[in-house]
Amino acid sequence: MKPLKVALLGCGVVGSQVIRLMHEQADDLAARVGAPLELAGVAVRRLGRKRDIDVDPELLTTDAESLVTRDDVDIVIEVIGGIEPARSLIVAALSRGKSVVTANKALLAEDGSTLHEAARTGNGDLYFEASVAGAIPLLRPLRESLAGDRVKRVLGIVNGTTNYILDKMDSTGASFTDALEEAQTLGYAEADPTADVEGFDAAAKAAILAGLAFHSRVRADEVHREGITEITATDVASAKAMGYVIKLLAICARSDDGRSFGVRVHPAMIPRSHPLAGVREAYNAVFVEAESAGQLMFYGKGAGGAPTASAVLGDLVAVGRNRLAGTHGPEESTYADLAVHPMGETVTRCHVALDVADKPGVLAQVAELFAKHDVSIQTVRQEGHGDDAQLVIVTHRATDAALSATMAGLRELDIVRAVASVMRVEGDE
Amino acid sequence: MKPLKVALLGCGVVGSQVIRLMHEQADDLAARVGAPLELAGVAVRRLGRKRDIDVDPELLTTDAESLVTRDDVDIVIEVIGGIEPARSLIVAALSRGKSVVTANKALLAEDGSTLHEAARTGNGDLYFEASVAGAIPLLRPLRESLAGDRVKRVLGIVNGTTNYILDKMDSTGASFTDALEEAQTLGYAEADPTADVEGFDAAAKAAILAGLAFHSRVRADEVHREGITEITATDVASAKAMGYVIKLLAICARSDDGRSFGVRVHPAMIPRSHPLAGVREAYNAVFVEAESAGQLMFYGKGAGGAPTASAVLGDLVAVGRNRLAGTHGPEESTYADLAVHPMGETVTRCHVALDVADKPGVLAQVAELFAKHDVSIQTVRQEGHGDDAQLVIVTHRATDAALSATMAGLRELDIVRAVASVMRVEGDE
Repeated sequence: MKPLKVALLGCGVVGSQVIRLMHEQADDLAARVGAPLELAGVAVRRLGRKRDIDVDPELLTTDAESLVTRDDVDIVIEVIGGIEPARSLIVAALSRGKSVVTANKALLAEDGSTLHEAARTGNGDLYFEASVAGAIPLLRPLRESLAGDRVKRVLGIVNGTTNYILDKMDSTGASFTDALEEAQTLGYAEADPTADVEGFDAAAKAAILAGLAFHSRVRADEVHREGITEITATDVASAKAMGYVIKLLAICARSDDGRSFGVRVHPAMIPRSHPLAGVREAYNAVFVEAESAGQLMFYGKGAGGAPTASAVLGDLVAVGRNRLAGTHGPEESTYADLAVHPMGETVTRCHVALDVADKPGVLAQVAELFAKHDVSIQTVRQEGHGDDAQLVIVTHRATDAALSATMAGLRELDIVRAVASVMRVEGDE
Repeated sequence: MKPLKVALLGCGVVGSQVIRLMHEQADDLAARVGAPLELAGVAVRRLGRKRDIDVDPELLTTDAESLVTRDDVDIVIEVIGGIEPARSLIVAALSRGKSVVTANKALLAEDGSTLHEAARTGNGDLYFEASVAGAIPLLRPLRESLAGDRVKRVLGIVNGTTNYILDKMDSTGASFTDALEEAQTLGYAEADPTADVEGFDAAAKAAILAGLAFHSRVRADEVHREGITEITATDVASAKAMGYVIKLLAICARSDDGRSFGVRVHPAMIPRSHPLAGVREAYNAVFVEAESAGQLMFYGKGAGGAPTASAVLGDLVAVGRNRLAGTHGPEESTYADLAVHPMGETVTRCHVALDVADKPGVLAQVAELFAKHDVSIQTVRQEGHGDDAQLVIVTHRATDAALSATMAGLRELDIVRAVASVMRVEGDE
């Protein structure tokens, strides 16, 4: 049987695992695809560099463009990340009829439409299971298994770095800075942690998930994004005292009328009894709520060389089979073309801690302000007294705009010395 | 666009939901498939019967065979269950080139090879996501997402009825009989609960999972099967006291040398900290452990009309797309052709409670017997005294044969008045 030739772009943490597994599992992969897979070349930035894996030096090249356009190459695996040159290389490959497997969430979320368009033109496959939640089969279930259902909501922990940091803060009482440092020491966070801790990575994944869930096109810049850098040890302790845990969540939710949806990434308090609360360390987990299926959860390793390579190879087998059968997998599905609604229209709940003057009538004034904005209060608790007097309030569901207006109003009240913390509450409606 | 015509076999709990959703979601389904789906007919046992759903009487027929062989029918959905006439109807449809979506775990596990052979002959699709774990996307991930990985173990709760019963026993202290009665009252268990409580349903699902996980063919009668009818309130309480919970598990595990695998369904104690321990009521959850991906978990509703219909419709969209593209999905993959090893070769652990004589030297004699069979003891605890003296022992890992021989030996010892309970322990190695 004529082998399928595979070009690999990138030979870092993921790429080297892809090479190892293609070699170690060659017989299994050949049996599953229906033809052997042969590495046609590996594009790297520098040739001489020491690598985690032995690669035939003949296969290495710094000329990625020539590699992806070679006539004998059937499939291109892109694991270099970033926007350019990844985009140009993928488009070059797809428009020549090759199939592409990529783990590039940033590119898909910034300019997925260009890639999908190139796949259509070339009549090849564009698969990207590894781009969200690493090894966890999540995109294929959304794209295919739930194709006969209506997804209402996707809610998940899709960034391992921030989950590691928040989990440490929760279990040891550490500050954000200390927990980040530990994550960096252990290799869970990069030297420049911005993409993770500011929520950019999670936002790109949220855009991809929302697009698949709602059969619409979503770009990363349409995702409301808040990071975790301002979360204090006090916030975490206060959540803990109330039976909650703080997680960085990606949430994609269809509006009640089904005509639009919200996409957001922000820290939120969830009840400790919620299955996502038990997701520890750098693990990922995603809840999917569909009309007929009900609640589903997917859990596993969201990053790392071998787990990500597992997802890449699963896609490689699928596109390999498709090529042999002369067909391709499901195309991008954007027929619903729903709009992303602004964050203000999102319905959520809020936990707010107020430093207040310790005198009669405070609660009445605060309650009146909530009522003015149509935000009803679920629980209120008074803590401390004198200069330490604090009101801790949890609201019922309201629009984010109403909640924001309420918070702004609270800051204007004379009897409120400070709004000590504000955090959204999810997962227990 | 010419519609794809769909014949439905069965109009019960699942079938009526399939009809409802095909109607309610007609536009979405058409957009996702690329052509409208049209119900060509519904085969039922009796025409006059009152149904959960309004069906055009013109569509109803008792002549299932004529329906599935009609020239204009493209896809057949089988949700009648059981071996015959389901098998003959599916084979008739497949061998005429139609595609089939089925939820029939019993048939797949008893004679899947006949169905897959007919699919190959007719060049159509045989999809069966709904046959295991209802709405949870599990077979597609195993079949496709993990196609580039090596599955080591699948361990799950795949029967909602028994999970409901065991959960009730655990949370209320109820006896098996009382918990079963409650499950029957609530509709979670059938009047004749044999298929569920004796593990037949779970065994069929285990056979399907093992076949997909290990790329081999597995029949239900190759699955070692033990039910939950002999589990007492005392067993449950004793497990609880030790920080364990009893679940009915389906376990498919590759041997250490990778040349064979075991498939079994039996009750087992798992630590309360294990993610499967938190699976309550009638929910299902399945752990998959693969070499590169690591541990994955899938969780959701394992049964019910709408959840099962969700899985059926997901498959319907997939086979519909395949037909329009003139292709078919992945065929049965049995190339590895691994053997199922006997239960005796399975490596597991054991919890055993012994009623013993309360005199010196008892523990020494018991320990000597374990040693004789090469079973090492992890913990031993003495409870009560006099006529109530009990030794509670948890072993380290050993073959099931060695554990069984040890249990038999214990029954022969003079100082052992009775082996009060024996239960395997899983999930904490």
